[in-house]
Amino acid sequence: MRVDVVGITEFRLPDDVPLELDAEGPEALAEFAGRACYESWSKPNPATATNAGYLRHVIEVGHLSVLEHAQVTVYIRGISRSLTHELIRHRHFSYSQLSQRHIPEGEYVVPEPVASDPELAAQFTAATEQAHAAYEELMTQIESKLAQVDSTARRKRARQAAQTLLPGARSTDIVVSGNLRAWRQFIAVHGTDQADDEIRELAVVLLQRLREVAGNAFGDFEISTLPDGREIASSALVTEG
Amino acid sequence: MRVDVVGITEFRLPDDVPLELDAEGPEALAEFAGRACYESWSKPNPATATNAGYLRHVIEVGHLSVLEHAQVTVYIRGISRSLTHELIRHRHFSYSQLSQRHIPEGEYVVPEPVASDPELAAQFTAATEQAHAAYEELMTQIESKLAQVDSTARRKRARQAAQTLLPGARSTDIVVSGNLRAWRQFIAVHGTDQADDEIRELAVVLLQRLREVAGNAFGDFEISTLPDGREIASSALVTEG
Amino acid sequence: MRVDVVGITEFRLPDDVPLELDAEGPEALAEFAGRACYESWSKPNPATATNAGYLRHVIEVGHLSVLEHAQVTVYIRGISRSLTHELIRHRHFSYSQLSQRHIPEGEYVVPEPVASDPELAAQFTAATEQAHAAYEELMTQIESKLAQVDSTARRKRARQAAQTLLPGARSTDIVVSGNLRAWRQFIAVHGTDQADDEIRELAVVLLQRLREVAGNAFGDFEISTLPDGREIASSALVTEG
Amino acid sequence: MRVDVVGITEFRLPDDVPLELDAEGPEALAEFAGRACYESWSKPNPATATNAGYLRHVIEVGHLSVLEHAQVTVYIRGISRSLTHELIRHRHFSYSQLSQRHIPEGEYVVPEPVASDPELAAQFTAATEQAHAAYEELMTQIESKLAQVDSTARRKRARQAAQTLLPGARSTDIVVSGNLRAWRQFIAVHGTDQADDEIRELAVVLLQRLREVAGNAFGDFEISTLPDGREIASSALVTEG
Repeated sequence: MRVDVVGITEFRLPDDVPLELDAEGPEALAEFAGRACYESWSKPNPATATNAGYLRHVIEVGHLSVLEHAQVTVYIRGISRSLTHELIRHRHFSYSQLSQRHIPEGEYVVPEPVASDPELAAQFTAATEQAHAAYEELMTQIESKLAQVDSTARRKRARQAAQTLLPGARSTDIVVSGNLRAWRQFIAVHGTDQADDEIRELAVVLLQRLREVAGNAFGDFEISTLPDGREIASSALVTEG
Repeated sequence: MRVDVVGITEFRLPDDVPLELDAEGPEALAEFAGRACYESWSKPNPATATNAGYLRHVIEVGHLSVLEHAQVTVYIRGISRSLTHELIRHRHFSYSQLSQRHIPEGEYVVPEPVASDPELAAQFTAATEQAHAAYEELMTQIESKLAQVDSTARRKRARQAAQTLLPGARSTDIVVSGNLRAWRQFIAVHGTDQADDEIRELAVVLLQRLREVAGNAFGDFEISTLPDGREIASSALVTEG
Repeated sequence: MRVDVVGITEFRLPDDVPLELDAEGPEALAEFAGRACYESWSKPNPATATNAGYLRHVIEVGHLSVLEHAQVTVYIRGISRSLTHELIRHRHFSYSQLSQRHIPEGEYVVPEPVASDPELAAQFTAATEQAHAAYEELMTQIESKLAQVDSTARRKRARQAAQTLLPGARSTDIVVSGNLRAWRQFIAVHGTDQADDEIRELAVVLLQRLREVAGNAFGDFEISTLPDGREIASSALVTEG
Repeated sequence: MRVDVVGITEFRLPDDVPLELDAEGPEALAEFAGRACYESWSKPNPATATNAGYLRHVIEVGHLSVLEHAQVTVYIRGISRSLTHELIRHRHFSYSQLSQRHIPEGEYVVPEPVASDPELAAQFTAATEQAHAAYEELMTQIESKLAQVDSTARRKRARQAAQTLLPGARSTDIVVSGNLRAWRQFIAVHGTDQADDEIRELAVVLLQRLREVAGNAFGDFEISTLPDGREIASSALVTEG
């Protein structure tokens, strides 16, 4: 699994707004939007005079709509289609996923805790190789059988149909965009010990990336390690409602 | 594939509104909402005096927000997880899908045009049976291997991981709710000859069900049969924007 | 303020699903959708064997997506445009509002606590009458001034412009559709003592109407009366996230 | 009316992706997302080898979801609350508006075509001044009347109530964030000669700002001037669906 930040909000202060900020990018835009609601450009209160303090306050009082202005886009590679089937249920993100029509190359994600047991992992990999071979064999059959009598369109359809033989572990890539409020919600829901391993791992990695570019908006989150070695991400200030 | 309508809007006219309608349910609510925008309870114009005429006009002039008030819920059974992966990308629906934690029973959807060729179908079925057996074998290994040393939680996680061996053709059920505007959009996008066969077939079946309960809201759609026998659904009045 | 339920989900059980329910309509559909996730049609657990118990459990564990399938539409009359400006910010509802092009008849909403003080109320009403007269006078001026030289379109535009003279207290009507999850969120956010009086009152009235048609989905909400006489609606189980 | 771009997507290419782009920011991210769907990093086709050509193709074939990744935030000042009441109906944007609790300073927007007629404009301004005076007078009454006997909370509520006396022409400021697809839709819907003057003017100004930062995503839009001097914005490629 590889996660790169490929898009991030750049903040531009209008030249006539008397505001000085100690942050930039997504964090700055969120603070700007919050202050615009009261034109509170001056900062008499030390507790909210820093960007970190201001966003902490925003999160504590639940004024989360200001976090919606700032957006981060990530490019996630090497996750399973089983995971993306869960991921794309979130309706506040935008997605561009590697097309099903892209020829699959036989890459599969071995999930935890199977991966950490060599014997189980070998058995898993054998199964995916078998499935991939069955897919390729069916493709060959389709080609030889339909090529003479059938249209290009029908062969194309048959190939698409054949792909449903591929396991959910099939590797895929996806571009996902979301605002800071949506990312907070995603991490809180999927970073728990109740979540499936792959999506939980994704939530933890995402939190790490998001902290690098907008740490003040995730200051209430913690990453901790369970006795069995799994990492989870959580915040006392996010609830599902 | 089986599609049942399990939820549908019931319309209740307030006792002080002087409106007479020749329709009920979703169609009546859509007309009521449209007329409420102008309190146009009387019907001087014969062209829009019927519900069919009124909704036709609404669709022609693009006043589609009135269609959002009326909702239809369907229970779709026997479709593949490959299809639901596409389906749930639509953000204007609500979904309740058969859980991944439900023990899979080895039911798979043989897609067109593989299904209509007995040899290809047999090959496809052999491959899904092989994949299912590999999944069950891995489960057995996990049980025997981890049962002595590991926690219930870890075994549960291993079982979830093993399920990613199952093909996208694996059968699933899903409850989907959407308003009439969203259903129109879905059918227009997926009812075309460019769509994958299974989702195109679903679009056609959905149109048939929706016409039974709210025909006036789909009066502009047509189902036609292509030279190769496939059915498509389309409307000249729906565009993607 | 008058609130009528004009649309509500009707539930239809598929003939081959072995489920018996002690509720109907929105509550039944929500339970059906929840049970479809595990095909748990039988009810071994007495705590969730009733619809009331089942939905209580759903709400407690936060499995709120099942509440999204059931929808309720209300027709709200006699509220101010100030209120609808707040109301329509909620993105999970669909709206059909009385058009701005509908000729205003001089009806205004006197808000609390002004309304409960006869002198303040009289002053308020005098001000709205004055504003309405100014609007009508401007309209007359526009008519006499532009009628000779200008197009119908320009006069129409001038009339629309004149309407911006009307106070936010101007009365309006609106049709609003939302699913049970969205209604719960709306009531929790606006039913508090921090909310403006008119929208708080609306939240309380909505809760009363919703309880009449889907009480089990709002069993955790309470209406209480503050020392100053205001009513508020709240639930310990709804948070904003 | 003043519109400043305060937030805009910055694009960051992952170091291992062999892609060269002739654009940056929102336009680059949209192209990147589109190419990620097929890993089509090379550009054999000259027609889509430039960012302008690529986005033109995306728009022509309706692959609009790639435009959702790129976001632009604007700070709009000096528009009426009548306009924001229309604006915030759009559910694909995020908003932070100047609070109602911010003390109004008596600034009002004189709408076209009233503004361009000195006599009508004077009459309009007299009416807003009268309304503002009535609001301030009521505030004074509330203060003197309730101060002795009532709580701070009640006085605060009375002040909020008094604000509903203010005309829809009352000036407000708002921060609005949206992705390129949503902005295209907004401009197409509100840039027409059928739209109210103020929101039409906003659509035209927004198009000008967006072209400065993401011109290739709006290459199909045109600004033209009607015989009566009004400017409109339109594209043959945007429809409402």
